[in-house]
Amino acid sequence: MSLAHGYAVRTNTAPLEPFTFERRAVGSNDIRIEVLYSGICHSDLHQARDDWGGAEYPMVPGHEIIGRVVEVGPSVTTLKVGDFAGVGCMVDSCRHCDACDHDLEQYCEKGPTYTYNSHDRNTGELTMGGYSDHIVVEQRFVVKVSEKLDLKAAAPLLCAGITTYSPLRHWKVGPGQKVGVIGLGGLGHMGVKFAKAMGATVVMITTTPEKGADAKRLGADEVLVSRDAEQMKAHANSFDFLLNTVPVSHDTNPYMSLLKRDATMCLVGVITELDPPLMGGTVIFGRKHVTGSAIGGMAETQEMMDFCAEHGIVSDVEVINIKDVNQAWERMAKNDVRYRFVIDMATIKA
Amino acid sequence: MSLAHGYAVRTNTAPLEPFTFERRAVGSNDIRIEVLYSGICHSDLHQARDDWGGAEYPMVPGHEIIGRVVEVGPSVTTLKVGDFAGVGCMVDSCRHCDACDHDLEQYCEKGPTYTYNSHDRNTGELTMGGYSDHIVVEQRFVVKVSEKLDLKAAAPLLCAGITTYSPLRHWKVGPGQKVGVIGLGGLGHMGVKFAKAMGATVVMITTTPEKGADAKRLGADEVLVSRDAEQMKAHANSFDFLLNTVPVSHDTNPYMSLLKRDATMCLVGVITELDPPLMGGTVIFGRKHVTGSAIGGMAETQEMMDFCAEHGIVSDVEVINIKDVNQAWERMAKNDVRYRFVIDMATIKA
Repeated sequence: MSLAHGYAVRTNTAPLEPFTFERRAVGSNDIRIEVLYSGICHSDLHQARDDWGGAEYPMVPGHEIIGRVVEVGPSVTTLKVGDFAGVGCMVDSCRHCDACDHDLEQYCEKGPTYTYNSHDRNTGELTMGGYSDHIVVEQRFVVKVSEKLDLKAAAPLLCAGITTYSPLRHWKVGPGQKVGVIGLGGLGHMGVKFAKAMGATVVMITTTPEKGADAKRLGADEVLVSRDAEQMKAHANSFDFLLNTVPVSHDTNPYMSLLKRDATMCLVGVITELDPPLMGGTVIFGRKHVTGSAIGGMAETQEMMDFCAEHGIVSDVEVINIKDVNQAWERMAKNDVRYRFVIDMATIKA
Repeated sequence: MSLAHGYAVRTNTAPLEPFTFERRAVGSNDIRIEVLYSGICHSDLHQARDDWGGAEYPMVPGHEIIGRVVEVGPSVTTLKVGDFAGVGCMVDSCRHCDACDHDLEQYCEKGPTYTYNSHDRNTGELTMGGYSDHIVVEQRFVVKVSEKLDLKAAAPLLCAGITTYSPLRHWKVGPGQKVGVIGLGGLGHMGVKFAKAMGATVVMITTTPEKGADAKRLGADEVLVSRDAEQMKAHANSFDFLLNTVPVSHDTNPYMSLLKRDATMCLVGVITELDPPLMGGTVIFGRKHVTGSAIGGMAETQEMMDFCAEHGIVSDVEVINIKDVNQAWERMAKNDVRYRFVIDMATIKA
């Protein structure tokens, strides 16, 4: 066992405060990682506030982790001491179900073990996330991170990155296709970068015209302001794929009219109600699809990290001192970040 | 031109009453059909009552038409005088868009011309449906009906039949698959018959346990009562495909939990709101799909008629005298029919 220093919330209304806890000893297949950077995901706030239910305290959030390998168990073959490593939303799964057999641990039929606010499958103890100085994770759930990548800006790839990369790959986005990314935030800005790198024509779809210029800087070929009925009409029935990154309830009906026949809108942000309700006619007339996707499996997460190294893709980040994490949460709640906060974990020692 | 005798509604509150009108002369590619049987579709009532907007009067409903060819234009190659013929929901389309080029006239980008309450693409006149003694339709929109089929029971194939056949084919339902049919009415009872004939294991999913026995008679292997939480839990994550035939707003969330990872629920009945709203999480966790399908193209409608002749499939019908059509509508509104009313059009002459 080792003593870890991190930040935790102790109730659903409390701020993040310094917190010391124990990490398990490094087992045969385990990797101990010194956390260098930890991204701040919008879901950290939702879970700390118990917006989705099931919160357990003390909670150490953080599932966008980049670090350095400092110890490996005797059976570890994937990484060695000194390598850069990444840990995302999961740290374990059942490993025996159909989903796990297909490298889709995120859809594990018994439920994956999440990096925090979840229970260790062996010890039953509450898992603690990346807002801490080190973490111990079994090798299947650790990816290798190329030295080519800007490490601080690579942290959000572990959640925002894979969440957008996986559906774009699964639905075979590529050259000759017109792809829309709905919502320009932590997820959306990665969706634009990936869809562009995969060769698609990318349209940023946003309610706020001011974001247009930035979307083009990120790689969007065009900007569609969804509140402009004329623009929406001009793009009707023209999209091969829509990646909907909006994280809150919203009216999805207008977006369905943008899709070609047989085309798909994939939700990656909103797990709550589609409210106002989706109209059945939006899928019936044109045989269109509403689907969704959650993060990605570990093999695909490694593939994404390698894709990012090859294409020079990272997130746009604002690095903060961990002592400022509560202010960062407040700003994130107001969408006042372009596009992801990342904690410099060295600041925990200061 | 020829004088047609039928039944029409003249306002959105009026009953059906005898009505005489003109049919166009038989053009080069046209087929004149003596209507023998005309099915009563739930949508006839919705349109007559203007529930969906856009109703124009006088309205002669009916888009499940079986008849005998009595005259053909000189360029007609598909049918000859004396053949049995079928006409469904459409009588024309633009014929030049991507959808028409792919034999998907139902998704014509300029909108198909419907069999009634629509405007003729050439003359602009209001189209009049199958509650009438004859109809003139261009050959692309007429299918050949095998003499093997029980003609009166074949009429509903033209709408209820193709509406359920097309999605089962498109999503490749077949042996080794577990398929659920939600809702046992005009559409649902055809869905059960088709899914069974295609080789799937078929589960009838209904809110009313009383319908169970009849579902098994129709071919269902099993009945799942959706209000029974224990039964729903036992079937969780087990379905390869769900055909949702419920024609009104309802809670679709519980059904999503029945689907396997990556599997699809297809809506064919509800064009209005999914209310209570669909939860985004139901598609995100398991990468599931909500989609929809509208009738079918003409080539596929012919394929379905041939499939029915081969497998001895027709609808379960109650044949009525046209003078009783208003009572039939009243009973249909109360779901008091197993499972489709069909008008014997010979009764219009009496």
